[in-house]
Amino acid sequence: MTTTPTGTPVTAASPGRPIDAAVLRELRAIVGAGHVQHEDGDVAAYARDATPLFSARPGAVVHPGSTEEVAAVLKLASSRSIPVVPRGAGSNLCAATVPLSGGIVLVLTRLDRILEIDTDELLAVCQPGVTSAELAGAAAARGLLYAPDPGSRTVATVGGTIATCAGGLRGLKYGVTRNYVLGLEAVLPTGEVIRTGGRLWKDVAGYDLTRLLTGSEGTLAVITEATLALLPAPESGATGLAYFPTLADAGRAVARIIGSGLVPATLEFLDAKCIEAVEAYARLGLRSEAGALLLFGDDGDPALVGRHLDRMAELCLGEGALEATVAGTAAESEALLAARRCSLPALSRLDSITILEDASVPRPRIAEMVERIDAIAARHDLTIATFGHAGDGNLHPTCVTDAADGDAVGRAHLAFGEIFRAAMELGGTITGEHGVGAAKLPYLTERLGTGQMALLRRLKAAFDPAGILNPGKLGS
Amino acid sequence: MTTTPTGTPVTAASPGRPIDAAVLRELRAIVGAGHVQHEDGDVAAYARDATPLFSARPGAVVHPGSTEEVAAVLKLASSRSIPVVPRGAGSNLCAATVPLSGGIVLVLTRLDRILEIDTDELLAVCQPGVTSAELAGAAAARGLLYAPDPGSRTVATVGGTIATCAGGLRGLKYGVTRNYVLGLEAVLPTGEVIRTGGRLWKDVAGYDLTRLLTGSEGTLAVITEATLALLPAPESGATGLAYFPTLADAGRAVARIIGSGLVPATLEFLDAKCIEAVEAYARLGLRSEAGALLLFGDDGDPALVGRHLDRMAELCLGEGALEATVAGTAAESEALLAARRCSLPALSRLDSITILEDASVPRPRIAEMVERIDAIAARHDLTIATFGHAGDGNLHPTCVTDAADGDAVGRAHLAFGEIFRAAMELGGTITGEHGVGAAKLPYLTERLGTGQMALLRRLKAAFDPAGILNPGKLGS
Repeated sequence: MTTTPTGTPVTAASPGRPIDAAVLRELRAIVGAGHVQHEDGDVAAYARDATPLFSARPGAVVHPGSTEEVAAVLKLASSRSIPVVPRGAGSNLCAATVPLSGGIVLVLTRLDRILEIDTDELLAVCQPGVTSAELAGAAAARGLLYAPDPGSRTVATVGGTIATCAGGLRGLKYGVTRNYVLGLEAVLPTGEVIRTGGRLWKDVAGYDLTRLLTGSEGTLAVITEATLALLPAPESGATGLAYFPTLADAGRAVARIIGSGLVPATLEFLDAKCIEAVEAYARLGLRSEAGALLLFGDDGDPALVGRHLDRMAELCLGEGALEATVAGTAAESEALLAARRCSLPALSRLDSITILEDASVPRPRIAEMVERIDAIAARHDLTIATFGHAGDGNLHPTCVTDAADGDAVGRAHLAFGEIFRAAMELGGTITGEHGVGAAKLPYLTERLGTGQMALLRRLKAAFDPAGILNPGKLGS
Repeated sequence: MTTTPTGTPVTAASPGRPIDAAVLRELRAIVGAGHVQHEDGDVAAYARDATPLFSARPGAVVHPGSTEEVAAVLKLASSRSIPVVPRGAGSNLCAATVPLSGGIVLVLTRLDRILEIDTDELLAVCQPGVTSAELAGAAAARGLLYAPDPGSRTVATVGGTIATCAGGLRGLKYGVTRNYVLGLEAVLPTGEVIRTGGRLWKDVAGYDLTRLLTGSEGTLAVITEATLALLPAPESGATGLAYFPTLADAGRAVARIIGSGLVPATLEFLDAKCIEAVEAYARLGLRSEAGALLLFGDDGDPALVGRHLDRMAELCLGEGALEATVAGTAAESEALLAARRCSLPALSRLDSITILEDASVPRPRIAEMVERIDAIAARHDLTIATFGHAGDGNLHPTCVTDAADGDAVGRAHLAFGEIFRAAMELGGTITGEHGVGAAKLPYLTERLGTGQMALLRRLKAAFDPAGILNPGKLGS
């Protein structure tokens, strides 16, 4: 079980009012009888997303096949004040798609077509149900790169990654999802269809609704089509790996790399607990005695990439690295990256519950933040290992404990509360890339202040006066 | 006189209610007597910005010296329903800072400190009154690049460039202002101070107010501090120039360059009328018989830049360029860029009024758009020359005519209305980088639709319930 049990977990067998028979008939008339589910056995799968301690059963699950159907469902729901929770793959880790107030879960996976990959305009147009990996694959087949690469990309839908402004491993060099959204078609809760932006690199006509919808977690509108910027695929890429006695040493190496004018495509770290877990799990031959492991990489012109990798290795050694290796081939690069890829599965097997969390701090504070995490874990008698994106300051402290041990789960909640507070004290934030959802909402006021929280609620009301769209989440 | 007389120009000697003596006393108490102006001779300079046909005299001009003073002025103005127009250098070209309803012009140029350039974190923190060029210079002195480079950068303030989401010549490779804004301190019209984002590359805690305020043209909040991303300065840069028989030939070359996997840092075009005007003005030795001139450039690793420039020159020749030159030195690059830099002054001297406009189309439609512009100009018996950013589809059709000839000015208005419609027909927009302001507001409904316009007004009301901030502009 992988979860993010921050805030107060919610479990409700059948929250909210049931969907009455007349509404079900209307829903069937809109999307077709085969695309409406309301039997307990059918809707149960939509009570949860990848955030298991949160669970609430919807009254109905609706699978629209077109923008018009989405609009008709929303119009109906608005007129009857029925909550609607838009959902892609449900792979988010912040309970963003758990239907806390029941109502309708609106599943967008039937809208799964890539409408266009344009090599002249360097853009893609696609429906929200396409997975992030499918889009990246289609772009790659045309020699192009879709840069956002969240860990969940093989299952996460493009609509979901836009709704959460998903990040990934390439944040420092390539930015996050918002940097690639050029335009959106979206349906307002009232059923009105709007189009924002377009096939344009520059467009300042109106408030930036494209970016406002990006990261709005299904609380403002339902995304039904996206126009996304692509890049020419880099000619080559390579990875290197360095071990350090401590994470502070690795942190200094990161500072030296950035300070030297390099902008690595990859800069990932594992702390000692992660290294140990990965080695125990995958027997990759990692040096278990190291205090930290740093993966560094770049992509682009082959000669330049080679030179950058050598320079990064040299800077690591200059800051006390025990060892630094640069992969000679693509296969060797893949082997090095395996350490990072294995982190979550390796930690998951240590106990029955894996609490994967997400916080960001200014890059120079990473080592200090991990020290704080370690101290908090020790104080609460918990195992919390941390890996993450050293390039952009985004950390994933991960707690492994026994799901059946209520006391330990409770201590984990307390510990993560302290961890978020520590991140904020260091100038950081409570979520770098996973989102707020229901899980982080209890911490949001502390991050934004009461004034900004009130403003968020006014913005929500400007889009959704009846409050039907994903209630109990962002903007509530 | 350089202007953008689209929409209906507005001139009002003293619009709105005068500021009464009691309010002036309160304003003086907040910012100090020396920082409040209300005499006709003093406030006249703030009746206009760089958009001359729009003019409206404010009741008072207030120069706050701190965030607290900004907050106190806004609180006072809200309580008395006095319009407030935030203003930096007033260099915008869309009448965004003309105080259409009178009231207070809030000039932010006293907040002119660069608070920090951090080479470890690759960021700057500065007040809104710093000019864009000062910030870029301070970054360059530390080996860093502040990428946004609007044409007005020597005078435009950072606050103004954020408020308009300013673009520039590097849009394709580097993006626009929004890509560099990490966090903002801003004062709501009610006087409440909010902080959005921070020193963080990844932060998804809450709706993306950072990006919503970027490009909101002083209608939602007053920006009092910005945290901005910097990049390592590229090691080198170079420019090339090619002449083509027609703009359609240049357009094909642009497509070939982009299609070949290159992302040029510079890709600018001049049409035949611009070439002729620049040559008559500056005697640079341009080929006046050419139908189009393309400037191309890149920056980064010197060897790579050289290779990219040679490849671009080759692709231009392959598409029928009459000639292609690559600069051998930085001085030669500067000389080539002079043709682009001279475009506006060269056109301005042709007649007494220069109407510099701004529209964007998808990159492959540039040549078609310029053909449409030429046909519209011929139909209205006007001289409209076009230059712009071939890399990102952003065009600046520029009309030169006689200010005293009311009929010609009227025809120019009609022509630009048709030009914006043509841009929209080609999938483009009414403003790529200059902004909406008062000048483009009449065209905004056509671009966004009535539903989205209503949504913009609801968003405006969520920030500014009393409607005091920059009335008659975006969100009105």
